Amino acid sequence: MKAAIFQGPGKIEVKEVPDPEIQDPHEAIVKITYSCICGSDLWFYRGLSPRQAGSRVGHEFMGVVEAVGDKVTTVRAGDLVVAPFVASDGTCAECRAGETRFCRNVKNWGAEGCDGGQGEKARVPMADGTLVVIPKSNFQDDRMMRALLPLSDVLSTGHHAAVCGEVREGSIVVVVGDGAVGLCAVAASKRLGAARIFLVSTHEDRAALGEKFGASDIINARGAGAVSAVRAATGDLGADCALECVGTSESWETCFGAVRKGGHIGVVGVPHGVPDIPVSRVFSSDVGIKGSGAPARHYIPELLPDVLSGNLDVSDVFTKTLPLSDIAQGYKAMDERREIKVLIKP
Amino acid sequence: MKAAIFQGPGKIEVKEVPDPEIQDPHEAIVKITYSCICGSDLWFYRGLSPRQAGSRVGHEFMGVVEAVGDKVTTVRAGDLVVAPFVASDGTCAECRAGETRFCRNVKNWGAEGCDGGQGEKARVPMADGTLVVIPKSNFQDDRMMRALLPLSDVLSTGHHAAVCGEVREGSIVVVVGDGAVGLCAVAASKRLGAARIFLVSTHEDRAALGEKFGASDIINARGAGAVSAVRAATGDLGADCALECVGTSESWETCFGAVRKGGHIGVVGVPHGVPDIPVSRVFSSDVGIKGSGAPARHYIPELLPDVLSGNLDVSDVFTKTLPLSDIAQGYKAMDERREIKVLIKP
Repeated sequence: MKAAIFQGPGKIEVKEVPDPEIQDPHEAIVKITYSCICGSDLWFYRGLSPRQAGSRVGHEFMGVVEAVGDKVTTVRAGDLVVAPFVASDGTCAECRAGETRFCRNVKNWGAEGCDGGQGEKARVPMADGTLVVIPKSNFQDDRMMRALLPLSDVLSTGHHAAVCGEVREGSIVVVVGDGAVGLCAVAASKRLGAARIFLVSTHEDRAALGEKFGASDIINARGAGAVSAVRAATGDLGADCALECVGTSESWETCFGAVRKGGHIGVVGVPHGVPDIPVSRVFSSDVGIKGSGAPARHYIPELLPDVLSGNLDVSDVFTKTLPLSDIAQGYKAMDERREIKVLIKP
Repeated sequence: MKAAIFQGPGKIEVKEVPDPEIQDPHEAIVKITYSCICGSDLWFYRGLSPRQAGSRVGHEFMGVVEAVGDKVTTVRAGDLVVAPFVASDGTCAECRAGETRFCRNVKNWGAEGCDGGQGEKARVPMADGTLVVIPKSNFQDDRMMRALLPLSDVLSTGHHAAVCGEVREGSIVVVVGDGAVGLCAVAASKRLGAARIFLVSTHEDRAALGEKFGASDIINARGAGAVSAVRAATGDLGADCALECVGTSESWETCFGAVRKGGHIGVVGVPHGVPDIPVSRVFSSDVGIKGSGAPARHYIPELLPDVLSGNLDVSDVFTKTLPLSDIAQGYKAMDERREIKVLIKP
């Protein structure tokens, strides 16, 4: 089979690798039908985070189960499944508390002996804990498949931003970040009943997608300009919820500036160079701060019915589709911000 | 009339001051029937926070309305009222959002020309926004009056800890701090349906009161010992909610250590010397942090029915009652931690 391999910064190659085989009775083998490139893949692609050359890549995928180990009970050959961006056992205390991202036996795709999601097949550890079966699947419905794939990471992460930011019926929300996660945070906020959703975006195409996903107001400014715009539109009160979907010092400042006293900041942008938070900053504003990688495995069953009904469709975040053989072009296009998110068909 | 005056660290004196008079049509004059000393009063008493010598003191009181200005509409002479620990207008954007602590016209008792609450009477600014009328009052019911007074600050603050810590039906809660606020946080958590409430307390009398208020487990340890005890009792998961009711570096560490991944820390202890929070600490744990001074004025109407019905009775936090003339003894007793909280009857 073929799989994408990281060969060093800026270099992704598709190579022939051995077909996966069940090594443990809790595993499953999945033939990958849809996969994609994540914004977080760009960190190692750009050489900004360490990754071993020769390692498999990709952590968002769905596919059809080919085989399962003897002890797998909830997944069968022939099932269409979505894999969350980490594998989890589903049985430890953290998993039972819904914190699958912090599973005691968590495994990362493309590391610790795990296959990557950007390839033709993957061996899935802890298949019962990890995989979610999509019921009544019509494999031919390409649009639905594209709407389901984001559950793996980007939609669950946008939803986590909204959950951590305490978005609820009637909330005024500002989403900082117009990447795929920010756009999904808009859709998730809309789903949770937000009354008004500001999207900070200086890119016309992304702003248009944000409006399609539910943004009521586009803030075509950054930093202090974005803060002023939100405050002006809310009688200088600020938004109830600010969703941080970038991870920079500036985006954090925008959230602090745009959120109201007693509001909440939901944080899902992986922080890079964000300074420590003075305790007085929390205590003098009553602003809540919460976030991290999303417990996607925990959220998927909750979000799935709305995706299947067509009420939650973020398939348009995939602005480009490439075959696995051309995946290097996809990395390049996302690195150069020419595409929001690239879908890979193995 | 008589009122308590701060004369410098360690020195509280009761002096004769002019009777208050209505100066603005939105004001009311309240004859104070019950007042008390707050743990936060000890900061200036100990010389640890600045306060002008000669200033009036006290910010928790209730009493009977003597007179109201022409523009006061919700409060009448003869009403029994509770005053929250700050005055607020009730009309600005923050007040309407429930953030009365951050009212744009907020006024602090004993500062900015406001009377203190430790005295025979007080002129109350923005009476409609500030005061809460207690319906069907039996002024002779001393126990009920003692149960109502904590709404002014300490009970509302304990409730704020529980709200910021996201305590809900079935939560496992750890309360760090066995002062009056911590004890009230226990009662508030119980009221919100917590299934299990750990109280960190190394003082037998406070622990006993905590159990009376709803604590299911007393952790007779501090710091790392308290963390170990909570983790051991929860299968090494940690508590869903940690309520920080002290404000020191050690108490924050106890909260971080005792809360589970994805849990919440509710913060109401005024922070003193607590170091900045690394963003990675938030992002690597998914632990939410939120808190500040409580919006008491916003909470009182919600808590009041449960106090009036007798379901929420924290009157036992008052371990000593003194006449106003002996208030200096009360400060001394609280400073020396001989009493949890001292009630003052003018």
